[in-house]
Amino acid sequence: MTETITIQGLVCPVPIQKRGQVIMGHGSGGKLSHDLIADLFYPPFDNPVLRLSNDAGVVDVSTADRIAVSTDSHVVWPLFFPGGDIGKLAICGTVNDVAMMGAKPSYITAGFILEEGLELGVLEVIAASMREAAAEAGVQIIAGDTKVVDKGKADALYINTSGIGVLQRDVTIGGEQARPGDVVLLSGPVGDHGIAVLSARGELGFEADVTSDVAPLNHLVSNMLAASKSIHVLRDPTRGGVASALNEIAKQSGAGIVIEENKIPVRPAVHAACEMLGFDPLYIANEGKLIAIVARSEAEDILAVMRSTRYGEESVIIGEVVEKPVGRVLLKTAIGGTRIVDMMAGEMLPRIC
Amino acid sequence: MTETITIQGLVCPVPIQKRGQVIMGHGSGGKLSHDLIADLFYPPFDNPVLRLSNDAGVVDVSTADRIAVSTDSHVVWPLFFPGGDIGKLAICGTVNDVAMMGAKPSYITAGFILEEGLELGVLEVIAASMREAAAEAGVQIIAGDTKVVDKGKADALYINTSGIGVLQRDVTIGGEQARPGDVVLLSGPVGDHGIAVLSARGELGFEADVTSDVAPLNHLVSNMLAASKSIHVLRDPTRGGVASALNEIAKQSGAGIVIEENKIPVRPAVHAACEMLGFDPLYIANEGKLIAIVARSEAEDILAVMRSTRYGEESVIIGEVVEKPVGRVLLKTAIGGTRIVDMMAGEMLPRIC
Repeated sequence: MTETITIQGLVCPVPIQKRGQVIMGHGSGGKLSHDLIADLFYPPFDNPVLRLSNDAGVVDVSTADRIAVSTDSHVVWPLFFPGGDIGKLAICGTVNDVAMMGAKPSYITAGFILEEGLELGVLEVIAASMREAAAEAGVQIIAGDTKVVDKGKADALYINTSGIGVLQRDVTIGGEQARPGDVVLLSGPVGDHGIAVLSARGELGFEADVTSDVAPLNHLVSNMLAASKSIHVLRDPTRGGVASALNEIAKQSGAGIVIEENKIPVRPAVHAACEMLGFDPLYIANEGKLIAIVARSEAEDILAVMRSTRYGEESVIIGEVVEKPVGRVLLKTAIGGTRIVDMMAGEMLPRIC
Repeated sequence: MTETITIQGLVCPVPIQKRGQVIMGHGSGGKLSHDLIADLFYPPFDNPVLRLSNDAGVVDVSTADRIAVSTDSHVVWPLFFPGGDIGKLAICGTVNDVAMMGAKPSYITAGFILEEGLELGVLEVIAASMREAAAEAGVQIIAGDTKVVDKGKADALYINTSGIGVLQRDVTIGGEQARPGDVVLLSGPVGDHGIAVLSARGELGFEADVTSDVAPLNHLVSNMLAASKSIHVLRDPTRGGVASALNEIAKQSGAGIVIEENKIPVRPAVHAACEMLGFDPLYIANEGKLIAIVARSEAEDILAVMRSTRYGEESVIIGEVVEKPVGRVLLKTAIGGTRIVDMMAGEMLPRIC
C-alpha cells in the first residue's frame, strides 16, 4: 500500500510506504533515535563501518598521502524537483566538491536536521535517493547524525554532507593554479539546476521543461586526470553560477579570464526562462557541470575525453586565461563587444541547493 | 562601541561589535557570500588550508594508517547557556566523538545554516567561541559552508561540524570491545549540560546554579591512551545520558553492565533540579564527560591518570562488565536493590545539543 502526499503545499512525486511522522523524541539519543536510524538509515546506507555504530567511523588511509575534505549543508526548496531531490543533491554536491580537488571521493558523512512532523515516508524516499547517488559515485556513508527541531524551526529537513577523498600523489589542482595561456573548458549547458528548482517552486509563472543536471562528476574527473597531467583548475559552478566561479578563480590565480558568450551553451528552455525573468544564465546554479582550466597544448585531448564520458558529452571550450586584467572576468559578447562579468552581486534564486 | 542584544527573547550575554543582519544574499554564492566569509570566518579560523579557498581542504595523512570520521549537527537552544554556546558545543561535540575512537582529532569542517535576520554580531561572537575551543583542542577548521534560509525556517543558526582524527597503529577502541570483568569508569558528575541548558531556557521555573560541562576531551583521552593499552571502550554520554550510552555498549558488546547508584557523582544542584522535575540524572546529557571501559588490571592506573588531567579530576569507578544479562544495564540502587536501566524511552530535554 502506497500513497502520495503533499509537503507544505508541494506534492512529493514518489509514493511513500512508511507511515508516521517525525516527533521530538526521534532526536533524543534514546530508543526512538536508535529505532529511527535502524529503520530508515542503516538499511539503505549499510556498510561495515556504519554497522559498528560507534561515535565515529574508522577507515583505512594507509595508501594515501593527502586527502581532500569538504562540507556542504543542503537546504533546497522544494525537496523534490525535476531531475532530483535534496538527497541526491546532498551526495552529488559533496562528491563534486571533493572531486574538484582532483581527489577520488570515498567517504561521506550525513547530518540530518529534521522538522517535527515530517513524514517518515518522505525521509525514506530521500534516503533511498542518497543511496542510489552514493552507489553511482562509489562512495560510502560512514558516519551520520540526526537532530529534530520543533515544528516551524526548519523546512521539512536539511542535510549536511561532508566528504573525504584521496588525492593521487602527483595531482596539484586548485583555484590558484590558472596560468595565462591556459584554456577554459565547460562540461555542458549552464543554468539547468537553478531553473528546474525555480520551476518546481512555481515561481516562474509557467512550467519550464527543464531538468536539473544534478549528477556525480567524479568519474568524469577521474577520466580527465587519467588523460592529462596538465589540468590546473577544476571547479563546479554551483551557487553564483559560472560567472562567480570564474571570478573566484581569476582572483585566486591573479590572472584574467576571457570567455566568449556565443560559446557558452544554454538550453532553449533555460534561455527562455532567463529572458522572461531578466536573469543571466551565467549566474544560475549548476549541480552537474564543471569548469576545467588546462594547459593549451592538451586542451583538445582533454575535451575529447570529456565528450566521451557520461556527464561530459556536451563539453566545450569557452575561453582562455590571460595576464590582465588581474582578477577579472571578461565576456566577448555575441555582437562583438567586451564587458566585465562580476561576481554575483545579490541573491537571485534563494535556496536552490 | 558595543551593545548587548536579545535574540528571540533571550539575551546574548556577550556584547556584540558587528552591526547588520544576515540577508538571503549572504547565501547566494556571490559577492555577499564571499564578503561574509572573508569578514566573519576567515579571520578567526585562519590557517593555510582554509586560506586557499578551494572547494575542499587538502591535508597530509601520509603518516596515518587509519582515520576516524564523525559528524554532528548542533541545534541547541538557547544559543548561549552557562558555560558555553552553540559554537563551543559544535567544536567540542565533534572533537569528542573522534576522540572516543582513540583517535587524535586534527581537522574540523563547519557548515552553517543561518536564519535570515540573524545579527551578524551574534555570528561573530559564536565564531570567536569556536576558534577558542578549536585552539584548546588543537584542531584546525579546514572547510566550511554557509547557507541562509528564510526568516522562520531555522532558529537563528544551526552548525554542523564533521571531524577527522588520526588513529595510532595499535589502538582498537569501540563499543563492541567491552568484555566481562572489565571495569567501567566515568570522568565526573553527570547531568550538568542538560540542566544548564534547561535552566538557561527558563524551563526549570527557577535558576539552577549549574554550568555546562562542555569541553574538549581529546587531551584527557590522549593521556589515558599513553598510560594503558587496555582501554576497550570510550564513549561520551551526550543525548540520552549515561544510561543510553551504557545500553548501546552492552548491546554492541553482547555483555551486561552493572553500575552502582551511590558511586555515580551528581552535583547537588543537578540532583535538586532532577528531583523537582522528576528526571533521572542518568538520562541527562553531558558534553564534557566520558565513560571508559578498561581491563580490571589497569583500572586503578587509568583512574589515576584521569584524575591528574583537566576534565578528569572527578573521575570514578562506577561499575563493571558482566556476562549476563546480555545487552542489559543493571543498577544496584543505594538502598540495596537492583533494577534494569533501559535506554531513554521518550524525549525529556529537546534541543540540548
